[in-house]
Amino acid sequence: MMEGSLLISKMLERAEKLFPKKEVVSRTSSGIHRFNYKELGERTRRLSSALETLGVERGDKVATLAWNDHRHLEAYFAIPGIGAVLHTINIRLSPEHIAYIINHAEDKVLLVDPMFLPILDAIKDHLSTVEAIILMTDEPQLPETSLSPIYSYEELLSEANPNYEFPKDLDENDPAGMCFTSATTGKPKGVVYSHRGITLHTFALGLADSAAISESDVCMPVVPMFHANAWGMPFASTWYGTTQVMPGPSFTPELLAELITQEKVTITAGVPTIWLGLLKELDANAEKYDMSSLRAVLCGGSAAPMGMIRAFEQKHKVPFIHAYGMTETTPLATLSRLKSYQEDLPEEDKLEIRAKQGYVVPGLEIKVVNDEGEAEWNGEDMGELLIRGPWIADEYYKDERTTDAFRDGWLHTGDIVTIDEEGIIKIADRTKDLVKSGGEWISTIDLENALMAHDAVFEAAVVGVPHPSWQERPVACVVLKPEASATKEELLDYLKPQFAKWWIPDDVIFMDELPKTSVGKFQKNSLREELQEHLIV
Amino acid sequence: MMEGSLLISKMLERAEKLFPKKEVVSRTSSGIHRFNYKELGERTRRLSSALETLGVERGDKVATLAWNDHRHLEAYFAIPGIGAVLHTINIRLSPEHIAYIINHAEDKVLLVDPMFLPILDAIKDHLSTVEAIILMTDEPQLPETSLSPIYSYEELLSEANPNYEFPKDLDENDPAGMCFTSATTGKPKGVVYSHRGITLHTFALGLADSAAISESDVCMPVVPMFHANAWGMPFASTWYGTTQVMPGPSFTPELLAELITQEKVTITAGVPTIWLGLLKELDANAEKYDMSSLRAVLCGGSAAPMGMIRAFEQKHKVPFIHAYGMTETTPLATLSRLKSYQEDLPEEDKLEIRAKQGYVVPGLEIKVVNDEGEAEWNGEDMGELLIRGPWIADEYYKDERTTDAFRDGWLHTGDIVTIDEEGIIKIADRTKDLVKSGGEWISTIDLENALMAHDAVFEAAVVGVPHPSWQERPVACVVLKPEASATKEELLDYLKPQFAKWWIPDDVIFMDELPKTSVGKFQKNSLREELQEHLIV
Repeated sequence: MMEGSLLISKMLERAEKLFPKKEVVSRTSSGIHRFNYKELGERTRRLSSALETLGVERGDKVATLAWNDHRHLEAYFAIPGIGAVLHTINIRLSPEHIAYIINHAEDKVLLVDPMFLPILDAIKDHLSTVEAIILMTDEPQLPETSLSPIYSYEELLSEANPNYEFPKDLDENDPAGMCFTSATTGKPKGVVYSHRGITLHTFALGLADSAAISESDVCMPVVPMFHANAWGMPFASTWYGTTQVMPGPSFTPELLAELITQEKVTITAGVPTIWLGLLKELDANAEKYDMSSLRAVLCGGSAAPMGMIRAFEQKHKVPFIHAYGMTETTPLATLSRLKSYQEDLPEEDKLEIRAKQGYVVPGLEIKVVNDEGEAEWNGEDMGELLIRGPWIADEYYKDERTTDAFRDGWLHTGDIVTIDEEGIIKIADRTKDLVKSGGEWISTIDLENALMAHDAVFEAAVVGVPHPSWQERPVACVVLKPEASATKEELLDYLKPQFAKWWIPDDVIFMDELPKTSVGKFQKNSLREELQEHLIV
Repeated sequence: MMEGSLLISKMLERAEKLFPKKEVVSRTSSGIHRFNYKELGERTRRLSSALETLGVERGDKVATLAWNDHRHLEAYFAIPGIGAVLHTINIRLSPEHIAYIINHAEDKVLLVDPMFLPILDAIKDHLSTVEAIILMTDEPQLPETSLSPIYSYEELLSEANPNYEFPKDLDENDPAGMCFTSATTGKPKGVVYSHRGITLHTFALGLADSAAISESDVCMPVVPMFHANAWGMPFASTWYGTTQVMPGPSFTPELLAELITQEKVTITAGVPTIWLGLLKELDANAEKYDMSSLRAVLCGGSAAPMGMIRAFEQKHKVPFIHAYGMTETTPLATLSRLKSYQEDLPEEDKLEIRAKQGYVVPGLEIKVVNDEGEAEWNGEDMGELLIRGPWIADEYYKDERTTDAFRDGWLHTGDIVTIDEEGIIKIADRTKDLVKSGGEWISTIDLENALMAHDAVFEAAVVGVPHPSWQERPVACVVLKPEASATKEELLDYLKPQFAKWWIPDDVIFMDELPKTSVGKFQKNSLREELQEHLIV
């Protein structure tokens, strides 16, 4: 067989040749910008050539601080296209952490949305490797800034070569991308993606039994492009000639609902908190929107409550696909599709299966292990999920924590799951969030999902709180829906028929909002800290 | 990223773990045999262990002489599973050629359907490398034969290890399969498939915009498993957990229609002559069958006439997918799907697009070249199709003809095509079949398809025949439908409005049947030979 390296530039070349007329719809701070794959190709080639002119060489890191828009998409292909490494910076990290990861990755050039100049201004004296900053803006004039040297993205492009040829002698195992994942404690940890890993992952996204990304789709990644490659959507959409809708900066649920309606979005992807917001908007203003184009809402990042899945599917007729992955897994690892012989089950049983995280996609392998070895596939035994395969990281970039997470050829995810007879996993908890009460394990996620299925509850987080005799006991932190009301007793009574007696939280604390991480997950460590002495004093 | 080698054994392991209950339906000479992926896994592991016991080592060639049935499927995974090479022998080759390819491949073990013992008996004295023959039969007693040593497949399996562990230290670039393609002149040419090439090809088959093979499908490969891996269907079906229907030996159109009806087949694959036969049967006995389960008839091997596509789609409501590939391309290379913006075209325009061979699948690259360089994408300029990518062969196995076909990193297919503005190719001819008349090229395939769209015509082959003043002129060989009639003048008058004057054949010759190759294609070289002096004397 021919060597035929799996390179990211080949995805873009296919779009240029076969789908030149297909569109990318990009929302920026100055409005909606539309262009096609022919133009995307030309502009990407210009950016590649401009980066080379600035001195970027193979293996160099080029970072982005940007939203989901067309320039970020160009960077997605231009940077790996020349053999450099696309480092997407999570702009929700603290300035200290952003400075750390820029230095740790040794970023040579930064591509920056003007909105993030203040962050850079604040940390500029701590940056030791950056040689140039490129401002991603429509404005002809660069804003006042002390940062230097600084370039205008559009000006660089206008002077660059639209016929730049991507080198074809790259090795498919060369690094193409890089993303840091925030750690519970300590500095963020870096994951490096190869051309091969990203290409194989993109194949997996296009499979009929996976996300089935197709030329006929209109794909809107709501998950940020700085977070695990927006789950690979920009790569898949480009390779398969899919129309792309990029929602841009600081979008609201209204804006997402409008974009879906106007652009006839067929598939979108994001974390549960995004969809909870959209659901609220649809519930409030259903008549304003048309969701009928949507064939799939892909949901991952954390477990989606069954109530939300039910509401999308039954009330708004929007099919929901639950998936699982993490920065370390590029990220798609499992996806919840019914098997054909499950199609005849009662609706509620099917919903229950689809509310799990699904089974592993072709190309990867998983196992579930606990102190006794491999967990039985019975849907009850809990264990840590281990994953391996060609788009799974094998280390954290220059980081000692590699040895904890990557052992014996497997990624140890830190996620506690059950796995049923069908190989379908269900996230029970993060290793660190699991409540260990009197020697038994209690899944905080199960309790949260049950609480969030209550009519009055908007969000709920359950944490383990130190307890004098039980080691830990669960405590629920609850945000009620606007104008809804419920008492602690009502909520606990609601849980009782659903769980063993010792699973029921010792207390319910009502809050105005729950603390969230930079990627929209509940920040349980800060809740745990706050409630440290709640059951003792 | 982890290395995560792409190995064929991993496909089977996924089916065993995730789809143990899903079924393989296999028709053998003794009836219909049903079993599931759990059993397939056990039997395959037994076969692997038995082959090792017989002395088969990594890199050894193990050949099959078999139909599409469950034992052949077991061999598909057991042989590459131990690191040996699955050599599928085209049983329609001449005994001399079969002896040649067994010796040329240096096959160590042969897995043989009893039906082919007479062939082996005839050539046994010419075989120089074969150490063992395994008879794939349900019968407890081996038949009388002078071949030795000979083993019973089932007896070997019954004594072997059902828990055999497939080695995981194989290199994904190691050879996994091998198939010889018949040449117009000379010996068959061998193509070697790697684990990597087959795995990537299988990804491509599962894409939503490709064949979209899914767990929910019931897949029946009619294309033989000895011909380019049955187009990869057995690998894709197993990896994705698809129900498989193997039609077994010497099937008829009636039998295929019955299997589709009874097993609720959703996707099937084969060459146009198979579908012409099925169409005849459906036209004659539509009331006996139910084709409503079929979501796709995949057709390749040679160009399908538009009339046939229309009949399947409009008359029998069976969606038709035209594809292109060859033994050297594993084989899927292009596939005819409408692009989303073509969906609004008039029905006839859409049919015309879908009667072409489609555009290249993700992962491969094509170009079309003629004497002037790359052909324009205008749907008119003809040129030879060149293909490259990670599931394209880079040589013929130990064969000097490698230098003709593999040049400058591209496979030169020998197929003359046009390519339109959308990148959609249309086979105009084989290089060797093209009629060169007065310095211009005439596509015999276009003429054949036009003839086969005539109500009275069952099959038609057009060949170039030496001509004193024009170098060559086209002559049509036509088989009429039973009880239909047409004269030469009627057929030529029918062609005239559709083609330039100088394309119209100089003669029409009516025949009872057309000579066909071992894989069901028209044998034009024998027609050419026969008609050598037709326009001269």
